[in-house]
Amino acid sequence: MSATLSAARLAAALTPPVGVAYRDLADQIRMLIVDGRITAGSRLPSERELAAATGVSRTTTARVYAELREAGLLRSRRGSGSVVCVPFGESSASSLIVTPADDTGIALTYAAPVAPSGLGRAFEAATARLPGLLSTPGYLPDGLPALRELLAERYAARGLPTSPDQIVVTSGALSAVSLVARAFVEQGDRVLVESVSYPHAHEAFVSAGARLMPVPVVADGPWDVEAAVAMLSSGRHLAAYLIPDFHNPTAAVMSESERGTLARAMRQTGTLAVIDESMRDVNLDGVALPPSFGSFDRDTLLVDSASKTIWGGLRVGWIRAPHDLVMPLVQARMMHDLGTAAFEQLVLAEVLRDPEPVMTSALDGFRSQRDHLVALLAEHLPELDVARPAGGLSVWAGLPDHNSTRLVAAARDHGLLLTPGPRFFTGAPIAGEAFLRLPYTQSPAVLDDAVHRLAKAYEGRRADHAPAGPRLDLIA
Amino acid sequence: MSATLSAARLAAALTPPVGVAYRDLADQIRMLIVDGRITAGSRLPSERELAAATGVSRTTTARVYAELREAGLLRSRRGSGSVVCVPFGESSASSLIVTPADDTGIALTYAAPVAPSGLGRAFEAATARLPGLLSTPGYLPDGLPALRELLAERYAARGLPTSPDQIVVTSGALSAVSLVARAFVEQGDRVLVESVSYPHAHEAFVSAGARLMPVPVVADGPWDVEAAVAMLSSGRHLAAYLIPDFHNPTAAVMSESERGTLARAMRQTGTLAVIDESMRDVNLDGVALPPSFGSFDRDTLLVDSASKTIWGGLRVGWIRAPHDLVMPLVQARMMHDLGTAAFEQLVLAEVLRDPEPVMTSALDGFRSQRDHLVALLAEHLPELDVARPAGGLSVWAGLPDHNSTRLVAAARDHGLLLTPGPRFFTGAPIAGEAFLRLPYTQSPAVLDDAVHRLAKAYEGRRADHAPAGPRLDLIA
Repeated sequence: MSATLSAARLAAALTPPVGVAYRDLADQIRMLIVDGRITAGSRLPSERELAAATGVSRTTTARVYAELREAGLLRSRRGSGSVVCVPFGESSASSLIVTPADDTGIALTYAAPVAPSGLGRAFEAATARLPGLLSTPGYLPDGLPALRELLAERYAARGLPTSPDQIVVTSGALSAVSLVARAFVEQGDRVLVESVSYPHAHEAFVSAGARLMPVPVVADGPWDVEAAVAMLSSGRHLAAYLIPDFHNPTAAVMSESERGTLARAMRQTGTLAVIDESMRDVNLDGVALPPSFGSFDRDTLLVDSASKTIWGGLRVGWIRAPHDLVMPLVQARMMHDLGTAAFEQLVLAEVLRDPEPVMTSALDGFRSQRDHLVALLAEHLPELDVARPAGGLSVWAGLPDHNSTRLVAAARDHGLLLTPGPRFFTGAPIAGEAFLRLPYTQSPAVLDDAVHRLAKAYEGRRADHAPAGPRLDLIA
Repeated sequence: MSATLSAARLAAALTPPVGVAYRDLADQIRMLIVDGRITAGSRLPSERELAAATGVSRTTTARVYAELREAGLLRSRRGSGSVVCVPFGESSASSLIVTPADDTGIALTYAAPVAPSGLGRAFEAATARLPGLLSTPGYLPDGLPALRELLAERYAARGLPTSPDQIVVTSGALSAVSLVARAFVEQGDRVLVESVSYPHAHEAFVSAGARLMPVPVVADGPWDVEAAVAMLSSGRHLAAYLIPDFHNPTAAVMSESERGTLARAMRQTGTLAVIDESMRDVNLDGVALPPSFGSFDRDTLLVDSASKTIWGGLRVGWIRAPHDLVMPLVQARMMHDLGTAAFEQLVLAEVLRDPEPVMTSALDGFRSQRDHLVALLAEHLPELDVARPAGGLSVWAGLPDHNSTRLVAAARDHGLLLTPGPRFFTGAPIAGEAFLRLPYTQSPAVLDDAVHRLAKAYEGRRADHAPAGPRLDLIA
């Protein structure tokens, strides 16, 4: 709970102050707290230590901490120094994470859509099958048999022969990754990850004791395959976690030959491949995707969910596992949740019996929202480097002056919640200052309003920027 | 994943062999694997080490391992010795844990009922409220506001003023305990537990890095309050996990003065009280219970769920937390499941608006099933020491010849799955050989059949028992 943050580590997460130094530093630390990079209960370094590590004066760090204390983000504990707290009451958990503090604000922190039309009917149809379920205790540690069969057939139809026994139904894709981590990771195990990725999945591995080994980012995609192969050969890695299809957040797709090379390296080094395919179906432009990573390595753990193309509120995901890894997964579950809600599995089974209408409705919506957002950005924020993603649920925008955290802080003042780029980076978060993830899972009207606010924030922040120069050197 | 089991530890879990030594020892190890005390991936000691630790011959341990290898429970890995595996195909996860391998068998491994009448109507009523939910992304990291309000009112009605902000909805009580453990436990933290308890909750703490410190059992209940207070004073404990109301599995109720004493000791030592109240409402005889533990210590984390009196298939539980612990709980959730299924929360809210009909139907069923089971045991297994529990969902039967694991193995041969007593014991599992948990959550007809099978197993095993003598000395 109460990790102590060293002065060096905190200093590394900060950029040199601009404008009024103490205010800017307090602002930067506030963002680190708000977006979860510094968690509640963490102990900050002393004012003296922080001054030494950042090169600002002791008076400045004293004012930084006073500022944070006044904002209710820091309190002093007897003998424990300054401890971070996120004051309750000011903002509830939901308002902090999912929705802005007041109803007039907009949150673009999540890439999660409302339910597509047709899902309500699936709920009704599932209700008809409910009595059979209510006459059981309802515990389904590996999943509802009918759903496991449908999911197995779905893999088979994609060229991956699968038996229902190989499916473990979980409470979403993140819950699947977390389960894999808890089942297989031991304290100190190395896990290869993409240096840009979905942060909660990385946190799930860390929470299970893993040491993350990020593969460096290259210009045109998140995979430096050569570096990854070298890393795997250099020492034992328990697992590698990758998102090869419409990678979150970059939307990149791993090529067939890259998949082959990585799968071979993992097989040779005994590394467990944990492949997140939860974006694979969000194929907006009907791109011909390379075969699933599971085709290259039979021992892969494939992770997927209904959250993107169907609905996140279902909280249903699943793992396709090699036969001998199913039981350890189910056993790990016995210490955590005993199974996924039974009725939701009936609902998903209903959808999967005839998925086209629901999926088509979802994809049509995403496609027009994507096009709308890309057009808005071209018109109102032409400085941003925006490519139209062929799939996935967000635009990964390049920021010419590497100011993601400050831009996000400014947007917040305009009632727009965003996730700062560094949040998606493991290893060298500072590199994330050059990026901003902009999800298009909300309606065109909301996107209009959001881009309007973002443009205002962008204008407002440019004035007091320090010249971009030394900061570039920090990018890994 | 792959803990190495020392010969001393394995030997301590085994009782001296009776009958054909290698077969009996193989049988005992098989049970340890089947009920999860030895998990898949564990490395067993070498044949030589096990022989030395148990005092049997090397030939015997060689035959034990050969037997286990033939049964598919052990395989040899190059350089890794003998590794436990639970072969898939022979038995699926569900059949191993929840239901017996064939349809004619009975599982008394779980104390979880089918849904009470009236729950189907709550599902239908919830469907009417669904459209409002489907128009959101459905992520509820702290829970559905309407449900949090109803749960807060419920606590207030019981004398614990509570604001909705203090409620975090989870995916069941175990998921709540697991979340608490992941939010607050750091590697090596000590957690005080009852030496007899619900094992999955203990595993959740261990999985988060805790060192369990069991409080010794006393004759008339699971709490040795004096020992607990002494333990808390002897050194820092992060938390204490207790089940004071119709304790699972003993059905004991902690007295008001015991609550007061323990709460005071925890407050004085800065120990976080984690109190599992999930059996509190299963009050079959309308016993006047002492006030909730939360009345004695405002900083208590109260854990509860809808699984016992409503339905486990909902997978909805909750935590009532002090204000300053809510945010760390929600933050921990961001690495694991992002929230509980949305629709199930609507269903539970429907039930809680008028809980009496559903709860009364559930409790009436449990009461008559309990009376039926107690009468059956008195008639067919008078040797067992059975007290009629005033609440909870199982009988905690005393076994005069301390043979729980062997009795469970014998019952399995009669198609009856049970959990061996040691499974509920932390610290000195051998003490559990004197007990058997018999849940009464199934119909009278199933209980008839189960007790019939159990009586046959009991008769069959008595003949080849070693005289109970030295084994008693092992009880802690």
